[in-house]
Amino acid sequence: MPTPSLPDPTNIRVNTRGAVILSEESFELRDSRGIYFPNYIEPVSHVAVDVGGSLAKVIYFTRSAEPPSPETVATLGSSQSNLSTPRSISPVDDELRRSPSPPASSSRLTGALTPSILDSNLHANGNGFFGGLSNDVLRNSMLRRASQHFPGGSLNFERFETDNIQECVDFIMGLIERSAKVNNVSIADMRQGVKIIATGGGAHRFYELFQNSLQVEVSREDEMECLIKGLRFITLIPDEVYYFSDELIESVAHPNSLASTLHIEPAADLERPSPNPPQYAVTFESNPSPQLPCLLVNIGSGVSIIRVDEDGKYERVSGTSLGGGTLWGLLSLLTPATSFDEMLTLSEKGDNACVDMLVGDIYGQDYGRLGLKSTTIASSFGKVFKKGTDKRQFSPEDISKSLLYAISNNIGQIAYMNAEKYGLDRIYFGGYFIRGHAATITTLSYAIRFWSKGTKRALFLRHEGFLGALGAWIKNVDPELGNHEDRS
Amino acid sequence: MPTPSLPDPTNIRVNTRGAVILSEESFELRDSRGIYFPNYIEPVSHVAVDVGGSLAKVIYFTRSAEPPSPETVATLGSSQSNLSTPRSISPVDDELRRSPSPPASSSRLTGALTPSILDSNLHANGNGFFGGLSNDVLRNSMLRRASQHFPGGSLNFERFETDNIQECVDFIMGLIERSAKVNNVSIADMRQGVKIIATGGGAHRFYELFQNSLQVEVSREDEMECLIKGLRFITLIPDEVYYFSDELIESVAHPNSLASTLHIEPAADLERPSPNPPQYAVTFESNPSPQLPCLLVNIGSGVSIIRVDEDGKYERVSGTSLGGGTLWGLLSLLTPATSFDEMLTLSEKGDNACVDMLVGDIYGQDYGRLGLKSTTIASSFGKVFKKGTDKRQFSPEDISKSLLYAISNNIGQIAYMNAEKYGLDRIYFGGYFIRGHAATITTLSYAIRFWSKGTKRALFLRHEGFLGALGAWIKNVDPELGNHEDRS
Repeated sequence: MPTPSLPDPTNIRVNTRGAVILSEESFELRDSRGIYFPNYIEPVSHVAVDVGGSLAKVIYFTRSAEPPSPETVATLGSSQSNLSTPRSISPVDDELRRSPSPPASSSRLTGALTPSILDSNLHANGNGFFGGLSNDVLRNSMLRRASQHFPGGSLNFERFETDNIQECVDFIMGLIERSAKVNNVSIADMRQGVKIIATGGGAHRFYELFQNSLQVEVSREDEMECLIKGLRFITLIPDEVYYFSDELIESVAHPNSLASTLHIEPAADLERPSPNPPQYAVTFESNPSPQLPCLLVNIGSGVSIIRVDEDGKYERVSGTSLGGGTLWGLLSLLTPATSFDEMLTLSEKGDNACVDMLVGDIYGQDYGRLGLKSTTIASSFGKVFKKGTDKRQFSPEDISKSLLYAISNNIGQIAYMNAEKYGLDRIYFGGYFIRGHAATITTLSYAIRFWSKGTKRALFLRHEGFLGALGAWIKNVDPELGNHEDRS
Repeated sequence: MPTPSLPDPTNIRVNTRGAVILSEESFELRDSRGIYFPNYIEPVSHVAVDVGGSLAKVIYFTRSAEPPSPETVATLGSSQSNLSTPRSISPVDDELRRSPSPPASSSRLTGALTPSILDSNLHANGNGFFGGLSNDVLRNSMLRRASQHFPGGSLNFERFETDNIQECVDFIMGLIERSAKVNNVSIADMRQGVKIIATGGGAHRFYELFQNSLQVEVSREDEMECLIKGLRFITLIPDEVYYFSDELIESVAHPNSLASTLHIEPAADLERPSPNPPQYAVTFESNPSPQLPCLLVNIGSGVSIIRVDEDGKYERVSGTSLGGGTLWGLLSLLTPATSFDEMLTLSEKGDNACVDMLVGDIYGQDYGRLGLKSTTIASSFGKVFKKGTDKRQFSPEDISKSLLYAISNNIGQIAYMNAEKYGLDRIYFGGYFIRGHAATITTLSYAIRFWSKGTKRALFLRHEGFLGALGAWIKNVDPELGNHEDRS
């Protein structure tokens, strides 16, 4: 039986032409949308796992000849695309209006891994001699699959809490078992063909757990390197990158903008992304172009700030411990919210002016000489500490909004200063902290715009939380992105 | 009756030669120590008031021929001075060990204002003709006082809560009434001779309150200008400025210090100021020299960051809303503490590692490639948000320490970035936030040292909270510091 001509494994590339982002299955999974690659034909047998301080992210690839049906393709979100259905113009905005929903990891147990070892052996033995393979079942399976060497497949995204890492292990175990069944090979053979690529801080901590529980090869990749590779890859996907439009930058620019003088302006003055007027909508990048050099600000539990040069060389130049973990930790002490999405929903309804001391509260007016508007936040939580104040007067909603602003403003400010220092105009914000949340995005965007006088742009990603996992995945697929030494 | 020869009022200077800082009356008033000027002979009739977001600070001058007795002179604090009584070597450290104490503004109702209008009229009419004065009592008083034209007097410091501004008004009212009595003039005449110089945000808000309640002239001064003038003046006082010694800088410098790569190191690794070994003690500047150019970081409810050039020109270049008000506000929600000193005392007993996620918690080890030590704080409060965690396990002490570190680290980081941007090596930290508190000072010092690789120095002031009031006071006394236009 003739086998189709296959590219040499060392030249495998992920063909992103025509890639589409699939719609999420629930609000909670809005950052975990699959990506369908219609032109990618190589099997990928490895599973990438990025274990962070709070969350473990998993990425794996499943082949499917079926292109997504129109209703499973995510709203493109371009502000030009769909003016007749306003709410869908800005998915970011749209999502906010929904109530927080289903529990995490309602795992989508469809699709299966296709161990590349099978394919590469098949390729190496394309003449039909399956030397070194151990059993007939495997041999037959490979023959069967070789005839199905269709293009197309999906990248799948899952996340788990690091504290429940066993859930993550169980998920991968299930994936391997299911894939063995689909590929009609034994679990032992499947295990031989599968590899775990682990990154993130927990890659070290949980190395043995993965290896012992799954009985597959586990290799580790450097966290920062994976973040950068993930960024380089994901920015090639159409409609993945989004930002506030230049019109918005113009329209909200501080009239007396003196980057030299000021506090950060709270996003309170900034219109939410909305279709009306359309310039307030988010713009999606439908024709991706190389995004280097840039600054990557990865906001997970903590924050890493990484300078990326045009040639992909990178350096972690700064960071701050005031990140997602700070917001989640403090709000879990201060509000009844039990999930980050609940906290974000609370903040939606809050008025930070009830807890923050504004310039106007102190001065009774603008401090014009310094360009400080009366609505500028002078002191986050500055209204709370007063003797005799009944602390119950401060609502969870107001507290949530104030803290979200404080953390976002601060990250934006430190990011700007680093972008300025290294002369970088593109500032990518990644990490699970973002969650496509309008108040977060507007605050970060406004901070960058404000401090840079509109010369720098804050850019966001729909798969914001998966950069490290994406990098670990692509590093072991695409030699161009994966194999040369990038670190400066 | 001959009157002594007096300098022309326009040439009045505050002679700081031999100035000594007096000991505080209580722990709570450690930032409000009087300063005795043995060689200053001019009367000063004005009262400076700096009304901030949370506190109102008052400064006034009282004349006294009596030099302070040895026991009223504050511990000099030089690490060389007093090795036999270790605890007194570092007043900063020493103070920490005391329990928080008396209520605020246990007003020291001694001394009285000496209206300069009386003196200058006296001077203008030195031949004995008291033209334009309204009554015999005043005339007699002036004759009496002229003969007492001794050198020496004290600058007095008081503070009140802005929310209880009436207390502040009452205090000044009492001071005026007492001064009238001491000077043997009517209250009406005293009022004519007294002037309120108001600065800070509340100068605008409370202008009419001061004017109407006190029935004295009130003038307003720009807040930033006063901060800078106050800094320039106070740094002339011996033993006012303090910092960690260079030996300490050397000994705690990160072994693989790469300013480019890292998180801020928590102060946990840094020895507290202590006499043993002596290099960990605070060094006091006993021979003041001009301190410009420098960066001034004023930490009140919010934070202002001001660049000061060598010629005294200044510009507010940055700021952050994460300041004292944020710490006080959040801790008043999260702990039972009802005063800032109580919060600081709580933090003394805490272990931030119980709430903060450290690099070691994520990686299980150092992240050596990035120079991140396992004790580095990766995420402030990063351990708090975990499903199923009993929130009561987080003690007020641990929470206080974590938040103090978070706010201090962040201010230190932003301050460093601005100092670097403007090429400034001296970074002064002022504002009531500091409170001479060891954990705050070590954290700020360490942050500056860490990020600057020891090339920049964090400097502190014993009258840290009174810069604005000092500036308002001196601007109306000393023409050299006061009258030329400094603002760039």
